[in-house]
Amino acid sequence: MRVTPGGARQADLAAVDPRSTPGLPDPSVTGLDRKSWCRSQVRLVGAELARQQEMLFASAKVDPTDGRRVLLVLQAMDCGGKDGTIKRVAGAMNPLGLRITAFGPPTDEELAHHFLWRVRRALPAPGQVGVFNRSHYEDVLIARVESLVPEATLQARYDEINAFERELVGEGVTLVKVLLHISRAEQRDRLLERLTDPRKHWKYDPADVAARARWDDYQAAYAEALARCDADAAPWYVVPADRKWYRDWAVAHLLRETFATLDLGYPPAGVDLDRERRRLLAG
Amino acid sequence: MRVTPGGARQADLAAVDPRSTPGLPDPSVTGLDRKSWCRSQVRLVGAELARQQEMLFASAKVDPTDGRRVLLVLQAMDCGGKDGTIKRVAGAMNPLGLRITAFGPPTDEELAHHFLWRVRRALPAPGQVGVFNRSHYEDVLIARVESLVPEATLQARYDEINAFERELVGEGVTLVKVLLHISRAEQRDRLLERLTDPRKHWKYDPADVAARARWDDYQAAYAEALARCDADAAPWYVVPADRKWYRDWAVAHLLRETFATLDLGYPPAGVDLDRERRRLLAG
Repeated sequence: MRVTPGGARQADLAAVDPRSTPGLPDPSVTGLDRKSWCRSQVRLVGAELARQQEMLFASAKVDPTDGRRVLLVLQAMDCGGKDGTIKRVAGAMNPLGLRITAFGPPTDEELAHHFLWRVRRALPAPGQVGVFNRSHYEDVLIARVESLVPEATLQARYDEINAFERELVGEGVTLVKVLLHISRAEQRDRLLERLTDPRKHWKYDPADVAARARWDDYQAAYAEALARCDADAAPWYVVPADRKWYRDWAVAHLLRETFATLDLGYPPAGVDLDRERRRLLAG
Repeated sequence: MRVTPGGARQADLAAVDPRSTPGLPDPSVTGLDRKSWCRSQVRLVGAELARQQEMLFASAKVDPTDGRRVLLVLQAMDCGGKDGTIKRVAGAMNPLGLRITAFGPPTDEELAHHFLWRVRRALPAPGQVGVFNRSHYEDVLIARVESLVPEATLQARYDEINAFERELVGEGVTLVKVLLHISRAEQRDRLLERLTDPRKHWKYDPADVAARARWDDYQAAYAEALARCDADAAPWYVVPADRKWYRDWAVAHLLRETFATLDLGYPPAGVDLDRERRRLLAG
């Protein structure tokens, strides 16, 4: 697991302070307080993400053998900020090139299949940026905490996830897995906000309070999933997420770094430009 | 067919000037030139669209019997600005609540089914805003121009489309159908731009020049589709689209007017707020 950005690789989730803001430049250097700097950077990085996304899309369109795509996996406790991150970070990109999938409790049809079945159906196509709002990791998180499957089935899933993600990498998928890490106190405040603000009542789900009672069990389940399913080609990042402005910046920054590894450019024309120009001006 | 916004209902597509900008306030009133005013309005209206979309999403979440959703159908000649409109207008909304589908040439599987089969699979779920980048109208546009089906089949399709759209309206879908109307000269300029700007080479498709040669046939096919498939509950709008800033504003404005007819609000809490607050503070 990596604490991002630039933090040390750690094995202990409890050692990551959800209120911390690692990797930010000193305010005396930027001339802005950290919050203002992050907000302005999110806009700038967002424009760059949109450009990178377009080049990714263009590359796949011009070359049908180019299977490259990006998949951002977002996990978090309830109120962890998955929706807000998608709105503000993924929202900077062209929705035409995005494929966003929210994974809720499995349907009867989904339960009748292997747990990765519904995930395979939701993968981004070549050229797309996929976002998973929750993911196959729920099958080793809530499944573990609530003992939804036999222990042997659960244990096998970590290896199945690793094999699945290796397969994805082989097909051209660049994976970025992010845990938005909030504190129990922050979750309480956000749940209270949903009970207080009439514009947020609809987000309140009493089931969230039941999950909250199992907080420590969930943290242990996260720690185990992150430790067992972290690979160089499919890394897990822990983003301290009590501060929304830091969270947005950190995820945007991670995506930009991910795109940088792809070394994208606008593909060259597949046609004779002069000839096409003449055809066009003749018609 | 309606020329938007606020224009008169017209039957003659050729009478709509693609460079016109109907419905804008006088620059002496706004204090801004029309382009600057439209650009600033798109930002303001975009924020309002995002709010409306959230209320739509919330309504469907709280009440599973609420089937309301919005479907924007975008049609245009090549280079008409469908992608740009989606980027700038739909892009103002939360991608979580959007379902965008681009309809290309039908696959073998799609051809084996009724022409509406692939369209039904792409409909927005209740609470979503759907966007069709091309649509079932291709089946009376290119199908007519290129004589892809027997005449009787083609003629039947107009009625089938009308019946289909009535069915959608009955299920809670609010339809907005928009033709982005560009001139032949503007299309030439945009195609030339794709041959000139290395960032746009990938968008250039020689097949577009073939379609361009059939310009008048396509205009006639559009005029017929708009005349035969315009209904009060599923209206067609013609948006003059030579000027991108006007086009974006007009489509945003249409969507805002569409949302206004839904009279959306944030749904009330489905739980006992005080009881939940006590539960939360106790845990």
